[in-house]
Amino acid sequence: MTTMLDVTDITAGACCTPLVREPLTAEQADQLAGTMKALADPARLRLLSIVAASENSEACVCDLIEPVGLSQPTVSHHLKILTNAGFLTRSKRGTWAYFTLVPGALDRVSQLLVAS
Amino acid sequence: MTTMLDVTDITAGACCTPLVREPLTAEQADQLAGTMKALADPARLRLLSIVAASENSEACVCDLIEPVGLSQPTVSHHLKILTNAGFLTRSKRGTWAYFTLVPGALDRVSQLLVAS
Repeated sequence: MTTMLDVTDITAGACCTPLVREPLTAEQADQLAGTMKALADPARLRLLSIVAASENSEACVCDLIEPVGLSQPTVSHHLKILTNAGFLTRSKRGTWAYFTLVPGALDRVSQLLVAS
Repeated sequence: MTTMLDVTDITAGACCTPLVREPLTAEQADQLAGTMKALADPARLRLLSIVAASENSEACVCDLIEPVGLSQPTVSHHLKILTNAGFLTRSKRGTWAYFTLVPGALDRVSQLLVAS
């Protein structure tokens, strides 16, 4: 469902629990769910974790294939999903692609889970 | 794939990028991917967001049905997934169930995305 979520409707529906700040709109939730889907995969979490654990939070694709035990095309596919979702940036030097972590990419979700 | 990821293997495979800390193991990644799946859904993100935006980060299930425009069984199903994943806790008072946010539930993922 992608019905527009109107904050007025939410407040009107709040019979017993007042809202103290504005929740996500349906559009924001759709977009954020797509971002979360990029993380909902063990291979992608491992790749992200290896990049994050590497010096300067950067790793060559050549270093990512062996640890996860997947083929190079599969690893590249996962890295593309993580890059499109905003968790990694990609740069090319010589024959190899390098991936760098984007810190704070999860901030919008973390902010959801902070007590108001 | 659920092959055990050995840190020694990773270090051995790191031809050009030294690791500065330990990445997720395959088991940790499997578990975390399950947690992320709970967030990879627009309706669940909206429900979580409404609970987080409610006073004391707590909401009655009766207040969650109308804003998301889903049936009560569907809302209850989504809330159960969020509770099982550790994002909400559930308590019953009278006829209604109340859901409370668990702050810091995303910490393990956020830590991944902090520059080392």
